[in-house]
Amino acid sequence: MLKIAVLASGRGSNFQSIIDAIESGYIQHAAVDMLITDKADAFAVDRAKKHGIDALHLDPGTFGSMDDFFIEIAEILKERGIELIVLAGFMRIVKKPLIDAFPNRILNIHPAILPSFPGLHGQEQAFDYGVKLAGCTVHFVDEGMDTGPVIIQAAVPVYSDDTEDSISERILKFEHQIYPHAVKLFVDGRLKVSGRKVIIKDEKKHDTFLMNPIPGD
Amino acid sequence: MLKIAVLASGRGSNFQSIIDAIESGYIQHAAVDMLITDKADAFAVDRAKKHGIDALHLDPGTFGSMDDFFIEIAEILKERGIELIVLAGFMRIVKKPLIDAFPNRILNIHPAILPSFPGLHGQEQAFDYGVKLAGCTVHFVDEGMDTGPVIIQAAVPVYSDDTEDSISERILKFEHQIYPHAVKLFVDGRLKVSGRKVIIKDEKKHDTFLMNPIPGD
Repeated sequence: MLKIAVLASGRGSNFQSIIDAIESGYIQHAAVDMLITDKADAFAVDRAKKHGIDALHLDPGTFGSMDDFFIEIAEILKERGIELIVLAGFMRIVKKPLIDAFPNRILNIHPAILPSFPGLHGQEQAFDYGVKLAGCTVHFVDEGMDTGPVIIQAAVPVYSDDTEDSISERILKFEHQIYPHAVKLFVDGRLKVSGRKVIIKDEKKHDTFLMNPIPGD
Repeated sequence: MLKIAVLASGRGSNFQSIIDAIESGYIQHAAVDMLITDKADAFAVDRAKKHGIDALHLDPGTFGSMDDFFIEIAEILKERGIELIVLAGFMRIVKKPLIDAFPNRILNIHPAILPSFPGLHGQEQAFDYGVKLAGCTVHFVDEGMDTGPVIIQAAVPVYSDDTEDSISERILKFEHQIYPHAVKLFVDGRLKVSGRKVIIKDEKKHDTFLMNPIPGD
């Protein structure tokens, strides 16, 4: 049973999508062992309680530095035997001590077809640019801003009468598909990082697709 | 009958896709009136001859500046009554005099999901980055490098065993679909530029898609 820790700051809808994928059996041989939040009132905490998952709030303001904050997280997660960290709307840049403690074992989701529109408000950036395809990306976390090796990406159309909200909602539906799938690929041992590239074992190929790779493969 | 001029530097496979779309009747009420190349031996010239299209070679080296080169092109195209300029593998950055003479009347295709990977070798940049979705974009030309308002974009999957060549080939197939479609939308008067955004009149919406908007709409 592979132990997962989720880091979140807010609502945690992607956290919920992973809980659901485990409870439905889509992701097997894994469990969310704990949630860590940097905000005391994160709604993600309510989700954790509802599903019997330990939740811990750590206030970055009580640490000497952000490095110290992440050293503490690394120690707690190592102590518990965590093998995978999933960032779900965690609004902090992960620092080197945690990355070094969990090399290629931290996942993030970003609401854009990276490397377009990294950083805050990817959906708004895409809307303002006037793209015709927006989307989302699951990637391993490195020390850059949304720059780590890409695991899975999805694209969604942007229509002439779309708003930032309607695009965000369309993207979010795909976030809730690709994130659990990326976790499943990791748990099943099908991801191998080679330089900047993520090799997917036993990959299926599709002529038509909404995302790559396709969930369910 | 709307007159189109094509500017090319090389093989001109996208030029061919537009010729084919006109000859098949997919694009109606338009004709390619002339080809201008900056290279004497561009294979695009052979394609023009085969289809009875006037071809003109202009050597930028014989002009005092690139501005002068594009002033000459603007004068020639205005003289002939050209209403749309299509760049098809034209390896020069279009300068202000031509852009000002044909505002929102110059199209370009780029082999990446812009704004990712502008400039030379978009496919190679995407491959080296390790994206899981690559693609192509048709956009109006402004003075930046592949920065103008986006008309249509397509995405293709990138698989673990892909090479730069196999990705390029997969993207090219979609280039040959979206470029004629963008020309058709322009010719049919369905494109309106509003700031950075291209509004598509009578746009159809799709739940599933390979590109947006979908050719044939």
